Amino acid sequence: MRTHVGIIGAGPAGLMLAHLLHRKGIEAVVIECRSRQEIEKTIRAGVLEQMTVDLLNETGAGERMMKMGMFHKGIEIRFNGKRHRIDMHRLTGGKNITVYPQHEVLKDLIAARVKAGGEMFFNVSDVRLSDLDSSEPKIHYQNENGEREELICDYIAGCDGFHGPSRQSIPQKIRKEYQKTYPYGWLGILAQAPPSAPELVYAHHEDGFALLSTRTPDIQRLYLQVNPSDSMNDWPDERIWEKLRLRLSADDGWKLIEGPIIQKNIVSMRSFICDPMQYGRLFLAGDAAHIVPPTGAKGLNLAMADVQLLAKALHDYYAAGETERLGRYTAACLRRVWKAERFSWYMTSMLHRHHDSTPFDYQIQLAELDHVTTSKAAAQSLAENYVGLPLELEEPSLSII
Amino acid sequence: MRTHVGIIGAGPAGLMLAHLLHRKGIEAVVIECRSRQEIEKTIRAGVLEQMTVDLLNETGAGERMMKMGMFHKGIEIRFNGKRHRIDMHRLTGGKNITVYPQHEVLKDLIAARVKAGGEMFFNVSDVRLSDLDSSEPKIHYQNENGEREELICDYIAGCDGFHGPSRQSIPQKIRKEYQKTYPYGWLGILAQAPPSAPELVYAHHEDGFALLSTRTPDIQRLYLQVNPSDSMNDWPDERIWEKLRLRLSADDGWKLIEGPIIQKNIVSMRSFICDPMQYGRLFLAGDAAHIVPPTGAKGLNLAMADVQLLAKALHDYYAAGETERLGRYTAACLRRVWKAERFSWYMTSMLHRHHDSTPFDYQIQLAELDHVTTSKAAAQSLAENYVGLPLELEEPSLSII
Repeated sequence: MRTHVGIIGAGPAGLMLAHLLHRKGIEAVVIECRSRQEIEKTIRAGVLEQMTVDLLNETGAGERMMKMGMFHKGIEIRFNGKRHRIDMHRLTGGKNITVYPQHEVLKDLIAARVKAGGEMFFNVSDVRLSDLDSSEPKIHYQNENGEREELICDYIAGCDGFHGPSRQSIPQKIRKEYQKTYPYGWLGILAQAPPSAPELVYAHHEDGFALLSTRTPDIQRLYLQVNPSDSMNDWPDERIWEKLRLRLSADDGWKLIEGPIIQKNIVSMRSFICDPMQYGRLFLAGDAAHIVPPTGAKGLNLAMADVQLLAKALHDYYAAGETERLGRYTAACLRRVWKAERFSWYMTSMLHRHHDSTPFDYQIQLAELDHVTTSKAAAQSLAENYVGLPLELEEPSLSII
Repeated sequence: MRTHVGIIGAGPAGLMLAHLLHRKGIEAVVIECRSRQEIEKTIRAGVLEQMTVDLLNETGAGERMMKMGMFHKGIEIRFNGKRHRIDMHRLTGGKNITVYPQHEVLKDLIAARVKAGGEMFFNVSDVRLSDLDSSEPKIHYQNENGEREELICDYIAGCDGFHGPSRQSIPQKIRKEYQKTYPYGWLGILAQAPPSAPELVYAHHEDGFALLSTRTPDIQRLYLQVNPSDSMNDWPDERIWEKLRLRLSADDGWKLIEGPIIQKNIVSMRSFICDPMQYGRLFLAGDAAHIVPPTGAKGLNLAMADVQLLAKALHDYYAAGETERLGRYTAACLRRVWKAERFSWYMTSMLHRHHDSTPFDYQIQLAELDHVTTSKAAAQSLAENYVGLPLELEEPSLSII
């Protein structure tokens, strides 16, 4: 089998790339190890940057999002029993964040792919890459019927997540990997209850961090900072609610609306970056190249940014034989990725309780929170990162005014 | 001997407090362990916030500063061989920073004290405090002739620096002390050479931090990050210049102007905060209550802010018998102090090379530098802290826009 671009992985990066390439008339084949059903059901991230929302709308995949999504103009930060709002919309000249679950985005993109008649193979296994530094890189895999397949491509997009084979196909000697494991986990729950607050609430508390989010008008999404080694057995429902009530409490008597917990999971908190994000004719995008802790809500959005840059670069090649943009793909992505890693690190450091932190460190956290909720400039710096930085970043200048 | 306010210490805090009280008609006595000559010669900080400059001018002590001071509208930040300017003046609506050495400020304040005929005793020793929770707190000391003295006061201002006896007079059980020792030292030099740059240059370099400042049109002040355990023997002049040239180097061929080194010293980098800053009729101000690392240039300026608040509070008492402001002196000072500690910690963390940092941490530093030199909001947040926060801070609000 032959195609222009072989895409490994039907997550946000792979499906959006296929969608963008189709709109530019570039043929692609998507292969994915999981089933379509599994992809469409797995609850993941839920906060979309303005640029991601615009991208879905501009490419005709935003219809359900505009109906079902919740558009937030700000977030709330709680600490010391006080509530503070960061008005993102006004601080960023009109940008919002949109709460619309990742698996709904994937449903929309799969539907768009099906409608376009694009090739997409689920339930494949034993994926391997070869000939990456030739002009005919290949993807080898076993299809859902157990038959070996070979996909000969012009280019391969490795959108197969942190554990996929694409990144491992970049020779180790040229691959530099950066990582940080944060000493916390997030216990996430879905609860059947209407939203307790109209916008996301980030709560700093001596007992630990808590985040109040929402998924639908009937389902709340809540997170608690826990020990990364904790298991579900450590967290019976009553303990979860007790900690959520404590950490989200406010002096003004604000009340958490509770309801049956319908799902629980614990996620680890880490950062990972692979440099370069390309090798020969292989280009990595999304989690295959970088992981952020969930505090900044950047994971899905970074994947969407990567594939926008990659689709532009591939279009340059197919439309004009121009490879300059493909050549600087890594540099263009990583500058933005490092800014998102910094922002996620900043939010994580500011909001979590470090059990080995000194009283000085704790007061510095409170001073940072005081700073960001009283300085318009500091709030604006947070807001412009939260709603998302532009795709193509400006060069630093000698004088910024 | 009796006075209204007994002031222990003739540093920036003590001398400015005496000056402010004199202007409000409140009598004070200043005692100091060092000689006047020593105080007027010791080279310390040199960067004044706009509010400190305004205070000196408004109280008639700014004449020499306005002649000899250097007024800077911005600072430069260097990293990765590139030069970036933060235009403080435009980012803060017209505020500047002023380079005028601390010992010159002290000369001006001592001259003002002498002119006002205020009492001031140098070369005292064995200072002790008593009866702090009575209405007649006392300072006991030995005068320069070796005679014991007792100074009976209404109030005592402990402006006697980190090592002075005032803070130790607050009972340990009610005193909470916060501290952090940064794992770096600063090697400072004075060099006979004209300024290499018109404004301060903060340089981040893989080899370590360097700072280029100036004292007079003929003398430059330069700092190098060193190991805190280093001694002067580790740093012959040629090694100092070699490291300064390396760390301050820029791709555009910028050149450091060198000259004979006329003074060298190594300072430690630490943070310290005492809470409360008051006990009975004792009020601490300046280094007696808090220390900041020099990176944010906040030490002298915090002392000036403390005594402004204290002078207002004492005026309330002497003019109207009102003690409400005295009662909340600690709270008013410490909120500002913690913001300055946060800012100093931020500048220190962003600019220094941590020898045990991971490659991830190093990239986060570069991303922070990239952020602050490309985002107007981030630069403004730095600038408004660097030029100095207002004396009376606004309350955090639910919505900041």
